[in-house]
Amino acid sequence: MILEGRSNVSKRFKKVENGSVTSPKGYSATGIYANLRKKDKLDLAIILSEVPASCAAVYTLNAFQAAPLKITKDSIAKEGKLQAVICNSGNANACTGEQGEKDAIRIRKEVSEKFSLKEHYIAVASTGVIGELMPMDKISAGIEQLSPVPSIEGGDLFSKAILTTDLVAKTTCYEIVVNGKTVTIAGAAKGSGMIHPNMATMLGFVTTDANIESKDLQYALSDITNKTFNRITVDGDTSTNDMVLVMANGMAENESLTTDHPDWEVFYQALQMACEDLAKEIARDGEGATKLVEVQVEGALSDEDAGKIAKSVVGSSLVKTAVFGADANWGRIICAVGYTGVEVNPSLVDVFIGDIQMLKAGQPIPFSEEDATLYLKGKEVVIKVNLHIGEGEGKAWGCDLSYDYVRINGSYRS
Amino acid sequence: MILEGRSNVSKRFKKVENGSVTSPKGYSATGIYANLRKKDKLDLAIILSEVPASCAAVYTLNAFQAAPLKITKDSIAKEGKLQAVICNSGNANACTGEQGEKDAIRIRKEVSEKFSLKEHYIAVASTGVIGELMPMDKISAGIEQLSPVPSIEGGDLFSKAILTTDLVAKTTCYEIVVNGKTVTIAGAAKGSGMIHPNMATMLGFVTTDANIESKDLQYALSDITNKTFNRITVDGDTSTNDMVLVMANGMAENESLTTDHPDWEVFYQALQMACEDLAKEIARDGEGATKLVEVQVEGALSDEDAGKIAKSVVGSSLVKTAVFGADANWGRIICAVGYTGVEVNPSLVDVFIGDIQMLKAGQPIPFSEEDATLYLKGKEVVIKVNLHIGEGEGKAWGCDLSYDYVRINGSYRS
Repeated sequence: MILEGRSNVSKRFKKVENGSVTSPKGYSATGIYANLRKKDKLDLAIILSEVPASCAAVYTLNAFQAAPLKITKDSIAKEGKLQAVICNSGNANACTGEQGEKDAIRIRKEVSEKFSLKEHYIAVASTGVIGELMPMDKISAGIEQLSPVPSIEGGDLFSKAILTTDLVAKTTCYEIVVNGKTVTIAGAAKGSGMIHPNMATMLGFVTTDANIESKDLQYALSDITNKTFNRITVDGDTSTNDMVLVMANGMAENESLTTDHPDWEVFYQALQMACEDLAKEIARDGEGATKLVEVQVEGALSDEDAGKIAKSVVGSSLVKTAVFGADANWGRIICAVGYTGVEVNPSLVDVFIGDIQMLKAGQPIPFSEEDATLYLKGKEVVIKVNLHIGEGEGKAWGCDLSYDYVRINGSYRS
Repeated sequence: MILEGRSNVSKRFKKVENGSVTSPKGYSATGIYANLRKKDKLDLAIILSEVPASCAAVYTLNAFQAAPLKITKDSIAKEGKLQAVICNSGNANACTGEQGEKDAIRIRKEVSEKFSLKEHYIAVASTGVIGELMPMDKISAGIEQLSPVPSIEGGDLFSKAILTTDLVAKTTCYEIVVNGKTVTIAGAAKGSGMIHPNMATMLGFVTTDANIESKDLQYALSDITNKTFNRITVDGDTSTNDMVLVMANGMAENESLTTDHPDWEVFYQALQMACEDLAKEIARDGEGATKLVEVQVEGALSDEDAGKIAKSVVGSSLVKTAVFGADANWGRIICAVGYTGVEVNPSLVDVFIGDIQMLKAGQPIPFSEEDATLYLKGKEVVIKVNLHIGEGEGKAWGCDLSYDYVRINGSYRS
């Protein structure tokens, strides 16, 4: 269920324009050029917290989890705290066997030595080519050069250095007030850009100065990930390297946030909005995407059912190509609703593209093709489905499927 | 498990070149131009058996099952027998509510009257535009004109008339010997051609003169469908109209085939080969496809697991675009293996493209990029994955993802 009273709660958020992962108190960051793969591309980045931070993480479900994820899990397992995240682009360190794990451990060790941190306070993330060993000489030389700064610029460099073929950096920042203290939540992400010959990877990094225990943070992140990062699809492929990390260093000095704290809901909502912002930016910047598609499902038996249907519709290649072609092809939407296996009563379903209704109680109704085409030519397309059999609701985000997707992903590796 | 002794069994098949649904004894067929949508496109077709035939059917799992499927189920529910199948292309009669069902019932009635058959001996199939009412005047006039013939040409007209934007007709035919009698099994299918603004539909029609009870035929068809028609993917979308029908009219006069008949296995294998032929032709003729992709998985814990992985790999947009681009991107294959949820030990997996090994026991091994590219430029690409944790094996078929897929599916409805 969407939390009640969101409209009241929402007055207590402030969206911070141009915020970055260094906006919350006590964080510094940077991104540098370590020559890992491409010329003129920042490719090694770090976030550092002045003090150990509570942390939470979610990882890809792909059976072939890359080495850095294993090492990050190992770090977090010790105390549930992190003080630094090191991330490189250009090489995913995936399918690299024992040597890959040794390399990830070495990266963690070198960061530990450089910044005098406990090894298990360090997370490692990688994105890029798979099946190639890490160029460790360059990584080591890069780590030596890292000098994170607490300015917005430091955060911006971080958000750029983690990208692969993403076209734009993805950042978000909110402020809330928790028992009189200003708490800031910020984030950076990379999406499904593809460097030949690798695969889509989604990485998300959220920093906050909130005071909160790791277990509560993990509870919130797991729940929110299912409604945000897990509700985006570019091509349905789930990478070996996907990871979302949240650090909360407590420097806002609020009373510790727990699920029964009066301001829990505000914090939860702000974290959700930050994650949703990043997720939508990833979808909008999908390979070859020309527009963001949001699917809103209501009236399902459960929120879970609604989410399944929303993801099915937004992930359908036929729907995606129709949106690309600005074709109001509601039949494909219905088709994608129908093959989810979720309970549906076909004679009750309504379908809208934007505010234009096309199916009412399972029957096609006349609509203006011209208006629909005009709407579909916009940069953001909303598809609404109401099943009218329950109270469940959910959203999902994706992009259209264009010639450029085929070009980007079909070209020879270089 | 693949049945034992297939090599011995296979000597008892004869592939009949240029066979069609009229090749088995007692069948006639035709396809005519009823002006349902496009000029110069045959669009109304019938198969007729001299005597009522045992029948078996499998239907789409899509919640929005089209009207003709409901009427066909209704027919078969009575006696499990069919004597005719009427099929139109151009209009799917899907999402057409009560009127759609009335129209499908009327079609059945008109065929019944025209050919003096019991109504419940008639199956109805449709493919084409969804959400539009059937042009019943044209259909009725068309039914009046149908005059099926027992020649190969009649079967060929049928196989052409059921197509939508498929580029080629898909037929198959085998002969076997069952206790001294020649039994013929033939089939026709249409694939995922797309007429704007509809959706992919797969229809398969198999005729045989075998003597077999409906329940045994259904047992074989359900089992075989899971290994053939359910193992192809063009874009992962499952239509409202998908259906496979088998008719067995007994005119070969063999002893009734049951699962314990000494020739059961030969019959089963021939039916499987016929269905596999049709399924592969559908995959090869996927929209915009430039090549057929076959994924072979071995060493899984079960055949079901192997099938899931094979379908995941062949359905991955990233794998499909890589194959289109002749890019030996084994990382994407591994990725698609990893996100199925099926049990895998990453450190045991082997991956081959053609006969070129790229991953051995989870580790990348050197290979000639040049050889791989040359192989991938061919018209048929085989990808092999061995999990080395069990005896399960399975195959799946699909096609590459090309610019033309986007063009065909992204263009405005006309």
